[in-house]
Amino acid sequence: MTKNYKQLNPSTRVLLGPGPSNVHPRVLKAMSTPLVGHLDPDFLEVMNETMELLRCVFQTRNELTIPMSGTGSAGMETLFVNLLEPGDKAVVCINGLFGQRMADIVERCGAELVTVEGEWGRIIEPDQVEEALKKAGGAKIVAIVHAETSTGVRQPLEEISKIAKKYDALFLVDTVTSLGGMEVKVDEWGIDASYSGTQKCLSCPPGLSPVTFSERAREVIKKRKTKVQSWYLDLSMIQNYWGKERFYHHTAPISMNYALREALMLIHEEGLEARFARHERNSKALTAGLEAMGLEMIAQEGYRLPSLHAVKIPEGIDDAKTRKMLLEEFNIEIGGGLGDFKGKAWRIGLMGYSSTKNNVFLVLSALEAVLKAQGYKVEEGAGVKAAQEAYGF
Amino acid sequence: MTKNYKQLNPSTRVLLGPGPSNVHPRVLKAMSTPLVGHLDPDFLEVMNETMELLRCVFQTRNELTIPMSGTGSAGMETLFVNLLEPGDKAVVCINGLFGQRMADIVERCGAELVTVEGEWGRIIEPDQVEEALKKAGGAKIVAIVHAETSTGVRQPLEEISKIAKKYDALFLVDTVTSLGGMEVKVDEWGIDASYSGTQKCLSCPPGLSPVTFSERAREVIKKRKTKVQSWYLDLSMIQNYWGKERFYHHTAPISMNYALREALMLIHEEGLEARFARHERNSKALTAGLEAMGLEMIAQEGYRLPSLHAVKIPEGIDDAKTRKMLLEEFNIEIGGGLGDFKGKAWRIGLMGYSSTKNNVFLVLSALEAVLKAQGYKVEEGAGVKAAQEAYGF
Repeated sequence: MTKNYKQLNPSTRVLLGPGPSNVHPRVLKAMSTPLVGHLDPDFLEVMNETMELLRCVFQTRNELTIPMSGTGSAGMETLFVNLLEPGDKAVVCINGLFGQRMADIVERCGAELVTVEGEWGRIIEPDQVEEALKKAGGAKIVAIVHAETSTGVRQPLEEISKIAKKYDALFLVDTVTSLGGMEVKVDEWGIDASYSGTQKCLSCPPGLSPVTFSERAREVIKKRKTKVQSWYLDLSMIQNYWGKERFYHHTAPISMNYALREALMLIHEEGLEARFARHERNSKALTAGLEAMGLEMIAQEGYRLPSLHAVKIPEGIDDAKTRKMLLEEFNIEIGGGLGDFKGKAWRIGLMGYSSTKNNVFLVLSALEAVLKAQGYKVEEGAGVKAAQEAYGF
Repeated sequence: MTKNYKQLNPSTRVLLGPGPSNVHPRVLKAMSTPLVGHLDPDFLEVMNETMELLRCVFQTRNELTIPMSGTGSAGMETLFVNLLEPGDKAVVCINGLFGQRMADIVERCGAELVTVEGEWGRIIEPDQVEEALKKAGGAKIVAIVHAETSTGVRQPLEEISKIAKKYDALFLVDTVTSLGGMEVKVDEWGIDASYSGTQKCLSCPPGLSPVTFSERAREVIKKRKTKVQSWYLDLSMIQNYWGKERFYHHTAPISMNYALREALMLIHEEGLEARFARHERNSKALTAGLEAMGLEMIAQEGYRLPSLHAVKIPEGIDDAKTRKMLLEEFNIEIGGGLGDFKGKAWRIGLMGYSSTKNNVFLVLSALEAVLKAQGYKVEEGAGVKAAQEAYGF
């Protein structure tokens, strides 16, 4: 017990990876607010406001719209453990790492997994889903990722939602990298259950996972014959803590909830439309810049996320070295590839508070410098110039 | 989207309930530190230091000593889902709400539950455990609560640990309300796995659950025949994120980890011995004061926690009204009873940063005022006087 620990002093990073994104000072400040108890009337008010504000970003009237006390993957697990029982059939669409993760969890629930496989970097076609549903017969759910963080693909949902309904299956959607950065219309699109994370386009630190459940999904939970396999994620109890009953279940992460409320207030103040337009504008400028530098986007054209940009690593360029130089020379974090794309892709995020013109210019300039240092041939200034043009300068 | 939300401004509470406890300003400040990524070299250093500091409070050399990304109950679930497989036999000791919760989780794991029941407010006797192990035959684990937050009982562990070993069972211990407030000697006591919470005697906000696993427990995980039923809590993957491999599993709650590191540094600076003595001293003074006011402690004498004091609610006194008055008139939170003790007990916590002489005087004075207001006969000033004497004033 004699070691001297230094004061906490992490580097000041520009977070342009797949999350966490940079966090607004007001959110950091909110987290340093002294705590009240998890059953304190003042905290109950924070909970109510957080639920209201979450319903706004999810564009839903779902009563059961709450932050789970874990990160995004806990939200993913929440959906499956509550909606599936052993022996149920589940159709899971896989065109990236997070689809794979859903499939893994489905199997851990003892459910029968039916996969719809798509190429990484391309969308899942509605026909594929219909075919799987037809083959499977009596599937209870269809699960899909709206914004694949591993590939940068934006998956259209409306048509697949209709197909799921036609086959009487619940429609489950991963909105981890879309919520707060682009339209997520839970009610209009007929989504029965969705989960997200706080550290992406909501620009709140990681630690909570917003989820929303339709009345139809809640009925399914109510009619379960078996107990939910996870006590910690069991919504049949948790909804009585967030609901009028206020029954103690577990001690909610107070400070994280302060942070989420503040992050959601910032979204409320900016307005969804303005926020989505900002993400779109910065994404277009970044993409123009990257392409002007001769880099190739991975996600299928027309189906690219405004929040995450997967870029092919050019021949002869060292993945780890590039990211290390960006971090050490410029304090910029971008993400490496996951799964099939490990060593083959970079993932550049422009999420929430990180989605700014300044960050677009910054990452283009820094990336140019780092690529040049590795002998990559690039027309000097082409990236920034293209971005400026995209902004209308 | 037109509602005006007010600035976050919760009341400033003196937190003397069953947790969360008050949080040191340095910990609050640490939480407001701008974020780095979860794979950033600077965060990896924070992780390493947090593991080192956790090993100190757990008094263990266990390599697998990490904070899980959820609150205490997630830690509880972590132990059972990783160590149990369907069909395994588990002996669970129940003398309070948290023993009940362990039993509930064991059943959700598909394991065969063998309970050892004890009266709420009294310890579990080693003989009872031995009898259960003998009867059960081939139990894989024995699980017990060190510090029952629902009753204030401090459970001796050494003898039961030996019995568990004699029957070749892993010894699992809930240290949620003891860790950081009293001795928890994981290695010396032969504990194979333990979980705790951050919001009790560690005086960190809720949101993480420190766990520790012996090499013997890790071997059991390694030899599993089935997948862990929870993806989110699957240590076979998570240990490769906290270990040398640094494999991405889920996005760790960065800010909460900043907070935990700082809270653990404060413990490191105070020293375990001094910290435990402080908890003991304040607990004795509070108990002397409460008894001088004619109130009755619930936990068996000789087996009371220094961190949590369960007190019988006197006849004719309204539980809810008392707690409401304490909160509204004095900004003091104490806890109500749980389970069997609902409406029958108060739970007064003196945990971590909340365990101070000033808080002892404060809660005794305020409680006297609130009891007097309800017609309770008490010798005026008797509580504070007894506490002063206990301190040697």
